Amino acid sequence: MAVRIGVVGASGFTGGELVRLLLGHPTADLAFLGGRGSAGRRLGEVQPHLAASAAGDLPIEPVEDASGLDVAFLALPRGDSAAVAPRLLEAGTRVIDLGGDFRLAAEAYPTWYGFDHPAPAWLGKSVYGLPELFREQIRGAELVANPGCFPTPAVLGLAPLLRAGMIEGNRILIDGKTGLSGAGRSAGDAMSHAATEESVRPYRFPAHQHTPEIERTLAEASGRPVGVSFVPHLVPAVRGVLTTAFAPAGEGVTTDTLVAVLAAAYEREPFVRVLPPGVMADTKRVRGSNTAELQAAVDERTGTAVVIGAVDNLVKGAAGQAVQNLNLMIGAEETTALPSVGMYP
Amino acid sequence: MAVRIGVVGASGFTGGELVRLLLGHPTADLAFLGGRGSAGRRLGEVQPHLAASAAGDLPIEPVEDASGLDVAFLALPRGDSAAVAPRLLEAGTRVIDLGGDFRLAAEAYPTWYGFDHPAPAWLGKSVYGLPELFREQIRGAELVANPGCFPTPAVLGLAPLLRAGMIEGNRILIDGKTGLSGAGRSAGDAMSHAATEESVRPYRFPAHQHTPEIERTLAEASGRPVGVSFVPHLVPAVRGVLTTAFAPAGEGVTTDTLVAVLAAAYEREPFVRVLPPGVMADTKRVRGSNTAELQAAVDERTGTAVVIGAVDNLVKGAAGQAVQNLNLMIGAEETTALPSVGMYP
Amino acid sequence: MAVRIGVVGASGFTGGELVRLLLGHPTADLAFLGGRGSAGRRLGEVQPHLAASAAGDLPIEPVEDASGLDVAFLALPRGDSAAVAPRLLEAGTRVIDLGGDFRLAAEAYPTWYGFDHPAPAWLGKSVYGLPELFREQIRGAELVANPGCFPTPAVLGLAPLLRAGMIEGNRILIDGKTGLSGAGRSAGDAMSHAATEESVRPYRFPAHQHTPEIERTLAEASGRPVGVSFVPHLVPAVRGVLTTAFAPAGEGVTTDTLVAVLAAAYEREPFVRVLPPGVMADTKRVRGSNTAELQAAVDERTGTAVVIGAVDNLVKGAAGQAVQNLNLMIGAEETTALPSVGMYP
Amino acid sequence: MAVRIGVVGASGFTGGELVRLLLGHPTADLAFLGGRGSAGRRLGEVQPHLAASAAGDLPIEPVEDASGLDVAFLALPRGDSAAVAPRLLEAGTRVIDLGGDFRLAAEAYPTWYGFDHPAPAWLGKSVYGLPELFREQIRGAELVANPGCFPTPAVLGLAPLLRAGMIEGNRILIDGKTGLSGAGRSAGDAMSHAATEESVRPYRFPAHQHTPEIERTLAEASGRPVGVSFVPHLVPAVRGVLTTAFAPAGEGVTTDTLVAVLAAAYEREPFVRVLPPGVMADTKRVRGSNTAELQAAVDERTGTAVVIGAVDNLVKGAAGQAVQNLNLMIGAEETTALPSVGMYP
Repeated sequence: MAVRIGVVGASGFTGGELVRLLLGHPTADLAFLGGRGSAGRRLGEVQPHLAASAAGDLPIEPVEDASGLDVAFLALPRGDSAAVAPRLLEAGTRVIDLGGDFRLAAEAYPTWYGFDHPAPAWLGKSVYGLPELFREQIRGAELVANPGCFPTPAVLGLAPLLRAGMIEGNRILIDGKTGLSGAGRSAGDAMSHAATEESVRPYRFPAHQHTPEIERTLAEASGRPVGVSFVPHLVPAVRGVLTTAFAPAGEGVTTDTLVAVLAAAYEREPFVRVLPPGVMADTKRVRGSNTAELQAAVDERTGTAVVIGAVDNLVKGAAGQAVQNLNLMIGAEETTALPSVGMYP
Repeated sequence: MAVRIGVVGASGFTGGELVRLLLGHPTADLAFLGGRGSAGRRLGEVQPHLAASAAGDLPIEPVEDASGLDVAFLALPRGDSAAVAPRLLEAGTRVIDLGGDFRLAAEAYPTWYGFDHPAPAWLGKSVYGLPELFREQIRGAELVANPGCFPTPAVLGLAPLLRAGMIEGNRILIDGKTGLSGAGRSAGDAMSHAATEESVRPYRFPAHQHTPEIERTLAEASGRPVGVSFVPHLVPAVRGVLTTAFAPAGEGVTTDTLVAVLAAAYEREPFVRVLPPGVMADTKRVRGSNTAELQAAVDERTGTAVVIGAVDNLVKGAAGQAVQNLNLMIGAEETTALPSVGMYP
Repeated sequence: MAVRIGVVGASGFTGGELVRLLLGHPTADLAFLGGRGSAGRRLGEVQPHLAASAAGDLPIEPVEDASGLDVAFLALPRGDSAAVAPRLLEAGTRVIDLGGDFRLAAEAYPTWYGFDHPAPAWLGKSVYGLPELFREQIRGAELVANPGCFPTPAVLGLAPLLRAGMIEGNRILIDGKTGLSGAGRSAGDAMSHAATEESVRPYRFPAHQHTPEIERTLAEASGRPVGVSFVPHLVPAVRGVLTTAFAPAGEGVTTDTLVAVLAAAYEREPFVRVLPPGVMADTKRVRGSNTAELQAAVDERTGTAVVIGAVDNLVKGAAGQAVQNLNLMIGAEETTALPSVGMYP
Repeated sequence: MAVRIGVVGASGFTGGELVRLLLGHPTADLAFLGGRGSAGRRLGEVQPHLAASAAGDLPIEPVEDASGLDVAFLALPRGDSAAVAPRLLEAGTRVIDLGGDFRLAAEAYPTWYGFDHPAPAWLGKSVYGLPELFREQIRGAELVANPGCFPTPAVLGLAPLLRAGMIEGNRILIDGKTGLSGAGRSAGDAMSHAATEESVRPYRFPAHQHTPEIERTLAEASGRPVGVSFVPHLVPAVRGVLTTAFAPAGEGVTTDTLVAVLAAAYEREPFVRVLPPGVMADTKRVRGSNTAELQAAVDERTGTAVVIGAVDNLVKGAAGQAVQNLNLMIGAEETTALPSVGMYP
């Protein structure tokens, strides 16, 4: 039986990717596309690659007109989801927010997002949408906070190791590398091809809002306090996030034991691939897929565990994971409409 | 008065860059070009961008035919410099080795380079060619070990801070990102455009040979024991190396104090640019130049110092630094033939 | 009912793309994977992005061991298909050749491919696998010559206009631009990232073997003699072919009449998108899809028709079109397992 | 003796490249930097790669404040040079305009540039700044119209062949490919890395303003009427323009005769490299240099001459050629401050 779906924020990269995936979903009925500047246009005008698809002629409507939906995806700028979600939720629409507005505790928003959270009550009910860690809560959730692109691979790699006591959590250092689609479609001169080709550069350090998201999720998943320093970098790619995390390894911990713990944690997961020792993670291999690749090793000279994760930031790091959450919420097969094999080369 | 110069290994990327820079050098006379597979051809055939230059018709001769040179640059594969250098040195030619064959202690070679060093006596006389730290020793050196591409920005950033006691040295974690020219001209399928575009991936971890080079140089420069874990990554760029180093910050150390120490250390250096707090390093800005950009900050939440360095791996990370060393060795102005401004965009 | 399928040449880019698409095909049973150098290994070892898929553990067998198949795809080097195909065909296996070995008349092979064709009788029975022009013949074919990457968009754009007499065919000039995956996985130093980024260059002009393929197919499709000059270029992309064809426009022909003819020719085609006047074709929009975008305009100042086509060279230009042909041959829905929407950005 | 130089439009890519080159010029004194939005800032703030250079602290002043200059470079948006130049010229400043405002006849401006030319008298005195064709006129010029990026390689390749009667000029077809820096620093979402990587697309066809510039210059250089259709394309590179021109070859014309004519025409030119038959032009080889590479061949099957040219659009296609013109105007050695060897890879 079809589920009435809305994509609110249909004109951005994430919105386009949501529509592309949902076009292949047998029970998701695209009932509403919402936008702000793009309202009044057809989807195919703002997303030309979708022009000839079944959704190409759908109108983009004002965000506020969303109604009568079973599930709404919100792919909106910072602060906008928090303003839009409550009305939908109160009308009985379940919400999957792809922004960052429902991922932290209320008191963290002024520091990391620069606003006072307008809907702390709903925030308290939000479930963090990382299916591999919180699958059961997601099934019944009214409001799902879809994870950020960096937290997804970082948390998938670190959480089982923290839980197993194989690494220390009080000073985890994470170096992130991201392609440029994460900056969105309207990203300004600094994201032009001319300014980014041959450019590797850190950004928004040490104030990136994914820092507390990783800390909080790891603490929740492992039951231990966690401290993280996170330095994100832009690299000249479009898709792909790779996180390289460093943490002190416990006594006797080796590459083999790290890999064994990860492999056991994810052996039944359709979208997590734990690499054997010595095989290197690669963002290119997972591009276009909902798969996360995880690699772990111990540098025995210094007793440092290194845990590396790679995802496509627009799929497992955003739209794909959101569809995975949708599938859980509506009782569909979890892999519906989601490729597990990347497009290579 | 002209100095007779040899470039041994003229057919690779580094060799080509050496020739390009030396063409603009008023007192360097390109007296010998050496190669192995390319011997017998003209330079312009193997380096077409140099075909129309003054060096385009120069013959590439067998490596062993090098003789009568004042200074020889060696840009040869691993292990080859160690075999070739002694004969040149014994004949009175001063040598600048751009390979890694003279950077470590003899006992480190089996582990990190996979061979027993064939010339440990010369190794003992080698001077590490980082002018900003070892300028005086370089002036008189017979044999200079030109630094690796990753060690150059990492050491430039960390050494003054270690010396000043602002960071701890026993567990420094370095995340490196490099463009693909570092793999050399004959790099195989894994370096094809098809396999590398949109690919971010670690490599050779935890066994990269720049690890002990960084440790040794930092220890020598700071007088303290240093332990480093180093994870290098390939990113889809041609030139550019960026190193992101994490170390525990000392009591009371702030972003401002870090930056002040670096700025003081390098205030008279023509090829080091210390960025003000909040400005992000960028490999693109230094591309084609012999300049290193350094950025430092403290993440006060976790007490972690982050020190970032960016260079063009073929210039300040290889050929440019080698010419800088040449200038010191022959008493020329240190900046001769070396651009300090990058080609942008 | 399942069809037994072989992919002969499974270790290359095209072979990998065939497997990726066939994994989503409900009636294609991957019964055989063949390779030369890769025989004896598992698919996932040579195509790591497929390692975790249902085909990841399939063995790659010697090419000669192919037997008992309903349909075999041949993705082999030049000259190899012509040697391999006859045995398969004689055993009753229908063959879709993705090489160029069955696209021209026998007498053209010495000039354009450098060998005497070893199986001229089979060559005579081969059907050119461009479904939009030769759909009915493909359905019953024993042997299908899958088109080249450049001929696909060029012929799709030009054939209807020639047939309608809107352009002259005796001196068509085609400028082609291709990404670098077309050179295959083992492409040597000239295809390294370092040698190709920022490089735009012609190649194999005027001897590219797609020239006679375009001429022959246009002549066959239009019933007129056709002469083509074709200059292919490499551009720094992985996927994507764009052809820009110039031809004298007939009396009274305008942009609108060109577009109208193309739109009428392809109005029911699921994989051809004719762009409205003024909209520019873009390889990026069709990447990962089996769609061809066509654009046409008249430069009225000089009476020149310009016809532009864009495809993903590995999908509509190779593996996707091959699967489209398979679908026709086995009576499946023509769009089975084939995306019509590209992955953007 | 120093010449007082102004760079008006110092904040764009071309302005930055002008300053970078002029920093190495022994007799050019950077006396004025002008900007519109950037007025009031220091150069290093808007061109960070120049921050540490001798020009880094120079103020950017309002465009209208330019005065007392010997020579002014104008690197301003369409229509702006035509408004700014007359006042400078009338005050005795010689002007090199890098925009398109002084390249065509007055009557062409409404059609191709969209404005009525405000200074037709000065337009009549303007000299087209292609030194290889108009060197003597440039020396004494008050006003030089620096050529466009596409016209430079196209005209250099075609003019000698037209003059020698080896090709016909009435229907020349030119396919252009350009990197994305040509769009300038403020180029909007369509020039973002996310929108351009893996994208090959035509643009502004058939109305690109370089069409009449090529026609007019070829006609002037050859004394024959010339008709051109020009289709420019964007490819995912930063620098580099490659033009592929097709024209009917005269009776008996071969690849060898074409190459011989070009080689003779340019044998003494320091910045033109005519490639031997069979060698392919490559934008990468000329990147960062003021060199144009020219390749010519005849496709004997169809009697078509193909003439290919490659330049760095920001150097020989803009700032470098402008400095070459400056050198002629001030009586300096023509090659002063201009590299002829590209930065490779």
